[in-house]
Amino acid sequence: MPSIWVNGERRNAAEPNLSAHDRGFTLADGLFETMRTRGETVFFLDRHLARLRQGLAALAIPVPPELRDWVMDAVRGAAGDASVRLTVTRGIGVGGVAPGSAPPTVVVAVNALPAFPPAVYASGIAVHVASGRRNERAMTAGLKTLSYTDAVAAFIEAQRAGADDALFLDTEGHCSEATSSNLFMGVSGALVTPPVTCGALPGITRAIVIELAGTLGLTVVERAFDLAELLRADEAFLTSSLRGIAPLVRVGDRPIGRGAPGTLTARLTAGYAGLFQ
Amino acid sequence: MPSIWVNGERRNAAEPNLSAHDRGFTLADGLFETMRTRGETVFFLDRHLARLRQGLAALAIPVPPELRDWVMDAVRGAAGDASVRLTVTRGIGVGGVAPGSAPPTVVVAVNALPAFPPAVYASGIAVHVASGRRNERAMTAGLKTLSYTDAVAAFIEAQRAGADDALFLDTEGHCSEATSSNLFMGVSGALVTPPVTCGALPGITRAIVIELAGTLGLTVVERAFDLAELLRADEAFLTSSLRGIAPLVRVGDRPIGRGAPGTLTARLTAGYAGLFQ
Repeated sequence: MPSIWVNGERRNAAEPNLSAHDRGFTLADGLFETMRTRGETVFFLDRHLARLRQGLAALAIPVPPELRDWVMDAVRGAAGDASVRLTVTRGIGVGGVAPGSAPPTVVVAVNALPAFPPAVYASGIAVHVASGRRNERAMTAGLKTLSYTDAVAAFIEAQRAGADDALFLDTEGHCSEATSSNLFMGVSGALVTPPVTCGALPGITRAIVIELAGTLGLTVVERAFDLAELLRADEAFLTSSLRGIAPLVRVGDRPIGRGAPGTLTARLTAGYAGLFQ
Repeated sequence: MPSIWVNGERRNAAEPNLSAHDRGFTLADGLFETMRTRGETVFFLDRHLARLRQGLAALAIPVPPELRDWVMDAVRGAAGDASVRLTVTRGIGVGGVAPGSAPPTVVVAVNALPAFPPAVYASGIAVHVASGRRNERAMTAGLKTLSYTDAVAAFIEAQRAGADDALFLDTEGHCSEATSSNLFMGVSGALVTPPVTCGALPGITRAIVIELAGTLGLTVVERAFDLAELLRADEAFLTSSLRGIAPLVRVGDRPIGRGAPGTLTARLTAGYAGLFQ
């Protein structure tokens, strides 16, 4: 099932398929989206494409008109659950940060859906607070760029600390997000999530969960909060396209609420699963 | 003269030579060094390799023992001035930020030395103050990772503002560095440069200039300063491996000192040129 497509052409995944002069490789000069698929269905493709187009515009990278077609080509005839990663870079260029005028590079990679342990959902996960901060005032804050080095470094730190993921604080000490998921907490029956002004990515699953909460009659508030408030919450969870809704039960050794998945998390998890039936 | 080598093997630069699953491409999960060369001489190679090894250790990427050999292979038989970019990534991996155990990918690219306009050195350059901030408390602060999206975005913003480069402030408002060079100012005969705690990269040329200043009997102070102090300085310049010492004469429309290259800049430029004789 795994396959890789570069600018609409299927390539042999076992052979080189990209230029080492691609600015996506040399300068992380590009953006990406990761999506769940089932058969030929790419879940929430329109939302992912809309976010990607916004990011490309922000970075002044031309939007390839074939984006949607190339994603659909890659899942034609597919069966079962998978993930699709769509990457768009500024293309090939030599000579520093100054952008040239090369055509963008578009990579569509179809991969197996990661197998998350059932315990992730049953008993929840623990995060380590990253020693480095998320920069809510970065040039590319809010864009899903290829610059994930900090996320990788924080994940490694979390692994060493015995945690499942890392939680970033922004430069002012507000909770921001995990290495590749958004954060929600439940407080007195309402949901609270950090605004994008705290360096949180405007996640697609985050937006879907906010809408889903509305249909369930739940209040959702986007506001800044710190680690102490997160620890006092009744419950918390992380959201991402591939992992979905993952209960967050501990920060290091300290429990969030009772240290177990909460009732709001359970209701939203059920509602979210219904979107994939 | 341009050539590209992947894990010690010469590749055809016009053909694909890298996997699109390389984590350097998908997650900017790697580091790089850019060096000047003349013939078979790679200037300051040992310093660049030392910094790279430190960065690899910080990111828990194994250090390929052949690094030096592969760089020297790439310049064997070369003539004239060129640049070499050495990139090391965590290698091929599918499945998010969690690092696997793939062998690292090493790319050595030999390129023409960029042709900087003589005006850069004769009359100096102007910077635009980037609207986004450099994060001095990032997980990877001080490491020359592949995450250059912010630098590219700031450079584009500077171009649109009619400037030659962008100057980053850190999250506290201190001057940090330009998109790919370090900053120095001259104040009452002494040199002042932002410490790495202001988000400045520990540049190789920065270190060489500090040592050179010592041999010329000049005082060098590493301390934080803001934009207002930079504008009140007598003179300023930027340092990088390829561009060397570039006089910085304006921030937007506001002159630094008299708005012309200064005497300390001239002395250091002469001394620096002597290192390449």
